[in-house]
Amino acid sequence: MINDRFLQAARGLRTDTTPIWIMRQAGRFLPQYRAIRARVDFLTLCKTPALAAEVTVQPVDALGVDAAIQFADILLVLEAMGLELELGDRGPHLPSPVRSENDVARLAVPDIRDRLSYVLQAIMLSRQALAGRVPLIGFAGAPWTLLAYAVEGGGSKNYLRAKRMLFERPALADRLLEKLTETTIRYLCAQLDAGAQATQLFDSWAGELAPADYARFALPCNARIRAAVKAHCPDAPFIYFGTGYAGMLDLVRQVGADVVGCDFRKSLESSIAALGADAVVQGNLDPAALFLPLPDLQQRATEVVNAGRTARAHIFNLGHGILPETEPTQARALVEIVHEAGAR
Amino acid sequence: MINDRFLQAARGLRTDTTPIWIMRQAGRFLPQYRAIRARVDFLTLCKTPALAAEVTVQPVDALGVDAAIQFADILLVLEAMGLELELGDRGPHLPSPVRSENDVARLAVPDIRDRLSYVLQAIMLSRQALAGRVPLIGFAGAPWTLLAYAVEGGGSKNYLRAKRMLFERPALADRLLEKLTETTIRYLCAQLDAGAQATQLFDSWAGELAPADYARFALPCNARIRAAVKAHCPDAPFIYFGTGYAGMLDLVRQVGADVVGCDFRKSLESSIAALGADAVVQGNLDPAALFLPLPDLQQRATEVVNAGRTARAHIFNLGHGILPETEPTQARALVEIVHEAGAR
Repeated sequence: MINDRFLQAARGLRTDTTPIWIMRQAGRFLPQYRAIRARVDFLTLCKTPALAAEVTVQPVDALGVDAAIQFADILLVLEAMGLELELGDRGPHLPSPVRSENDVARLAVPDIRDRLSYVLQAIMLSRQALAGRVPLIGFAGAPWTLLAYAVEGGGSKNYLRAKRMLFERPALADRLLEKLTETTIRYLCAQLDAGAQATQLFDSWAGELAPADYARFALPCNARIRAAVKAHCPDAPFIYFGTGYAGMLDLVRQVGADVVGCDFRKSLESSIAALGADAVVQGNLDPAALFLPLPDLQQRATEVVNAGRTARAHIFNLGHGILPETEPTQARALVEIVHEAGAR
Repeated sequence: MINDRFLQAARGLRTDTTPIWIMRQAGRFLPQYRAIRARVDFLTLCKTPALAAEVTVQPVDALGVDAAIQFADILLVLEAMGLELELGDRGPHLPSPVRSENDVARLAVPDIRDRLSYVLQAIMLSRQALAGRVPLIGFAGAPWTLLAYAVEGGGSKNYLRAKRMLFERPALADRLLEKLTETTIRYLCAQLDAGAQATQLFDSWAGELAPADYARFALPCNARIRAAVKAHCPDAPFIYFGTGYAGMLDLVRQVGADVVGCDFRKSLESSIAALGADAVVQGNLDPAALFLPLPDLQQRATEVVNAGRTARAHIFNLGHGILPETEPTQARALVEIVHEAGAR
């Protein structure tokens, strides 16, 4: 590996400078990505390994980030389980959402190499194209977040349908979560087998649950996935990320992830204080901060880098995905700022 | 006052049981409210004092809550400042949002008795109809939240336009915030003069800001409003409420409110621990918890009541507005559960 500071930091080791990658770095803010999307739709891009590998590598070339993350979508796994899925820039849509006992019973725990082989092939091609320059991260959605999409049929304002399943039919919710958990374990292990060198579990809607419900319905699934994936591949760092969960970091810590993604809604310093000084953290610049004038961006990013020094190790990232409106020059400047400010 | 336990608790005093009111209690989940809305649209309802007073009192009769909150909308003040406003069940729309220097310059700091007299009249009628049964709360939106609506032209996914004004044109944002702050002070003082017995400042989008930006752009306005409103009417409790701000309660505390609304995304116990045991808190049941079966709702609500005992005083509420799909019988049951569990 030519640049392995991401993996070193994820393992809690000291690095020459703070590593950085950016959530949604393979995405719409890059003109290189938009050029490909002008030719193919989102789902086709996901399912064409050569193209998915190409957009995976783009930000490594364009921005100089310290890790690549395989281009894919957390909802592909729902399609593999048997749900119809429409993806686009306006957000996902599942025309036949999961509502009944039958809907849950019908969902398969799929053979990943059969139903998601295009992701595994894309991982192999990405590794080949990266040629050891930086490590490749694989990822999956966390069961509660997948349940929310599957039950709501897309995004939602208050996730009432999904929560009603938890509250009114907890046994049904448990069966659905069980299938999602088992599928996610297989999916992440298959990604590691295909060549991913770390994994991230995205729990986008973790913060929509009250702590008691997170503890009951989300945490056990996430902890089980963490344990199974680490047992399969102990050396590959496991990252857990959610939004809006700054108020329940005591529960988030119990997932047992090697690296905890931090919300921008709490200062990185106090997130680290809540997680413990032996934590390895990732984050947490507000994506909108990339619209600050350069001197202000420099100051803000440097504050995050300095706060990160209070943890065992720190991987710089945004607190959420980079916004499509972001200027690539600003993202590139951020990478330079972080590498400079983080140098020891 | 026949039932003043809300005011007593808001002043940090001991009460016979835990008081409860419910955000959006005068709203769509009540058939009585929907019957009136079948005849008039939302904005007409806001602007017809007799009807606004009628829906304000409805939940006191229907649910037995310990306070009424004047039916109105936080965005009415933007219309009074000169912005076109469309309100409906699908959310607000401002067809001519505030974007330029001129847009900000054109906004008036209105004479409240001239431009919002319908709210003041409604408050007088509500007080008359309540006849001392329970106190009446007045309210306003906080400046950052109002800025976000004014700049975005409605709701938003990531508030990028609003944040870009803060980040790219901070002097312009300051001028807009100044006008919003001054207007809000006048508006809340006028509501108190008209008969409101407490006020709540709603900062719905507080949690969309990173702590550093909240400290720079929201906190000073909120603290200034608190000071001015309390100077005008020292005996009327001042409540501050926002969502998603569980990660920055150290800043929230600095607003200096008599009562702090607590997000459901953090346990009430740990919110109180962060605010200090001398805090008076309000909250924080997840609105979706009203869909729990009755025994589970009882358990969950009792946990919140018991957590509230670790604060100086506690006013029970939801962590956000009651959902339109809620069964009124469940809301009535919640009021009974809280009064029973909170009895000393």
